[in-house]
Amino acid sequence: MPRYALKVEYHGAPFSGWQRQSEHPSVQGAIEAALGRVEKREHSIAAAGRTDAGVHGLGQVAHCDMEKDWDPFRLSEALNYHLKPAPVAITACARVGEDFHARFSATWRQYLFRLVMRRAPLTHDKGLAWQVPHALDAAAMQAGADRLIGRHDFTTFRSSICQANSPLRTLDRLDVERVEGPSGPEIRFHVKARAFLHNQVRSFVGTLERVGAGAWTPDDVTAALEARARAACGPVCPPHGLYLAGVGYEPDPFDHI
Amino acid sequence: MPRYALKVEYHGAPFSGWQRQSEHPSVQGAIEAALGRVEKREHSIAAAGRTDAGVHGLGQVAHCDMEKDWDPFRLSEALNYHLKPAPVAITACARVGEDFHARFSATWRQYLFRLVMRRAPLTHDKGLAWQVPHALDAAAMQAGADRLIGRHDFTTFRSSICQANSPLRTLDRLDVERVEGPSGPEIRFHVKARAFLHNQVRSFVGTLERVGAGAWTPDDVTAALEARARAACGPVCPPHGLYLAGVGYEPDPFDHI
Repeated sequence: MPRYALKVEYHGAPFSGWQRQSEHPSVQGAIEAALGRVEKREHSIAAAGRTDAGVHGLGQVAHCDMEKDWDPFRLSEALNYHLKPAPVAITACARVGEDFHARFSATWRQYLFRLVMRRAPLTHDKGLAWQVPHALDAAAMQAGADRLIGRHDFTTFRSSICQANSPLRTLDRLDVERVEGPSGPEIRFHVKARAFLHNQVRSFVGTLERVGAGAWTPDDVTAALEARARAACGPVCPPHGLYLAGVGYEPDPFDHI
Repeated sequence: MPRYALKVEYHGAPFSGWQRQSEHPSVQGAIEAALGRVEKREHSIAAAGRTDAGVHGLGQVAHCDMEKDWDPFRLSEALNYHLKPAPVAITACARVGEDFHARFSATWRQYLFRLVMRRAPLTHDKGLAWQVPHALDAAAMQAGADRLIGRHDFTTFRSSICQANSPLRTLDRLDVERVEGPSGPEIRFHVKARAFLHNQVRSFVGTLERVGAGAWTPDDVTAALEARARAACGPVCPPHGLYLAGVGYEPDPFDHI
């Protein structure tokens, strides 16, 4: 069966998360239903990151197997037609080999987290960023973030229900960028690793917000990391500022489209 | 009665427009209802621009008269509390003199129009930008836009129901900017004038889209302007890419907060 890689963008709000659930709408379920309109049968797709409820996709990658030899562009057009009006879009589609697996072939994942600093409630960015009503010191947050870079036991920064075998991960990038966003001053976190633990990015952001507010020092971040205890983590921040921004493969299946 | 200037941000989607209507939700009605929770009586406010259904506010300005001498920050906080969950936010509030009028004191209005060029349906930007499925030539659009700058009879670019006494307006700025937006390549129109005719910006954008697509030349824009006939206008584009970005006053009431 010909296999296709799909680049997927979605708004997380109406979904219980990526993963299919019998009782609740999911992004996976929406795409599998659209595939069922294109080729009438059961479909089962896999994704690089199984995002939680409320988390957005910008460059999520999934793969699907088809019976017919579809032109990739026509397949993406057909899926987008059947996905409407759900806020899910196939932004790229490429034919890949049988050995390509959206989850297991991924060599890195990159997340974006948007945090807007203002008092007035958000309007256009409601559900698209985490709002805090106070100013944050981006330089202090970057100093705290630097303590997390590299290979560590991230037990402190993983959910208690995380199913990964090991808490060891290598964090390649955690950049804290201050930008003038559409809703006011904004902190953007750019986080990259080969793989992440459950709730790792939200645990980082919630902890670094405390550093930006002056309640924690960068040394407190190091102490929390070294404690290797979930209780040492700062507050986990809400999901709706989080975006799965991109996934890396070698070679990139979308390189030549 | 002490008078206050309010800077107002809103998502246009759930509203029939700025102006109060008995049967439909409006931005004016939402703010007047919130004012009625703060001081229990009928309120009637005025705004710089009476935006149409679906049009967004970023820097709309309104004024209200209060009985009590409110601290401006506390008034904005109280209004934001009572406005929830409507996507309307008071982002600034300032005490002004009795001679300040949000509409009649305004010396300029500036609009932003977002146009996203891509095939896949929008997800996060759904309702926040006009989507066209083809590429557009921004340089050609700017050349067309330049033909509209200055003082002209804009009969071609005003709605047939426009109630302004004169079709003469002075267009100070119509910049066509190409940016890499959150949903892909985007054209942003920045349009500024002392005052606008009804549907003037949407008539400009719809016409310039035709220039960007190669269907019209900049000379066609000049010919349309000189025709002084509504029928000579290009297609009027949809409202949901349009934002009232800002309003100017001398002095700016929000300058010292």
